[in-house]
Amino acid sequence: MKREIVDIGVIYSPFKTKEETPIQGKLKPEAKGRVEVFPEYAKGLKDIETFSHVILLYLFDRASEIRLIRPTFLDDSPHGIFATRHPCRPNGIGITTVRLIGREGNILHVLGIDVLDKTPLIDIKPYVPRFDCFPEATEGWLAGLSERPKPEGRE
Amino acid sequence: MKREIVDIGVIYSPFKTKEETPIQGKLKPEAKGRVEVFPEYAKGLKDIETFSHVILLYLFDRASEIRLIRPTFLDDSPHGIFATRHPCRPNGIGITTVRLIGREGNILHVLGIDVLDKTPLIDIKPYVPRFDCFPEATEGWLAGLSERPKPEGRE
Repeated sequence: MKREIVDIGVIYSPFKTKEETPIQGKLKPEAKGRVEVFPEYAKGLKDIETFSHVILLYLFDRASEIRLIRPTFLDDSPHGIFATRHPCRPNGIGITTVRLIGREGNILHVLGIDVLDKTPLIDIKPYVPRFDCFPEATEGWLAGLSERPKPEGRE
Repeated sequence: MKREIVDIGVIYSPFKTKEETPIQGKLKPEAKGRVEVFPEYAKGLKDIETFSHVILLYLFDRASEIRLIRPTFLDDSPHGIFATRHPCRPNGIGITTVRLIGREGNILHVLGIDVLDKTPLIDIKPYVPRFDCFPEATEGWLAGLSERPKPEGRE
């Protein structure tokens, strides 16, 4: 089955380069973003402002070559792409949970953004801790690894 | 920007109809699923078994008409589609976090599945509580609403 995905908006962030983009939003909770939903979809935002957190789905539109196994920012050992959050993956879709701090019409103001400036937005879903929070989950190969400078030349 | 999405596998579940499919996986944690990744993508699963929970991205391939505002299973008041997890949404992509209980080659055995049988799989990402758990998030319009039988005729 093939499906054509279209943008429903644009995510604006302070990050113009891959090097300065945070590895995950939780690691830079103060990073401000602006989510602009195209006017033809704006009606779908009704009541979104009742949530403190939302999940953004977006396209990794500047990712390079897809490889099924590769090293990551946090570890030099190679891992399977589906065991990482790496951008260079089949279908190139990213997800990130952000704090929603305000809405003005079709614009959402958010904190904890971790995407490149002008990233294509493809969906927004409410984050509901009752459904989405699994504090008992293990950290897999990430256990014990903490944030470090991004290794040079690595995407 | 347009992007063509392709299946990377199939999700098998006990749910043949929309009526019997759980509203969310957390509401039926014992529901067993089988995630079959197509052989050409199987290498990308390396080390996935180190995680206890994974996020599945999939296509709502049997969703009906897209409407930007509509009532939901949990509430009769209409909400914007981006303030709900409703399947009939622009781009029709669903996300669900499941417990990973075993892997045999390109097959993952999972618990807490909440999708229709034979749903097209488009991505798998590791669930990492450090990045993905926001227990402080509010419940928005869902606050105080609890599970109830699905209203008849509602998708």
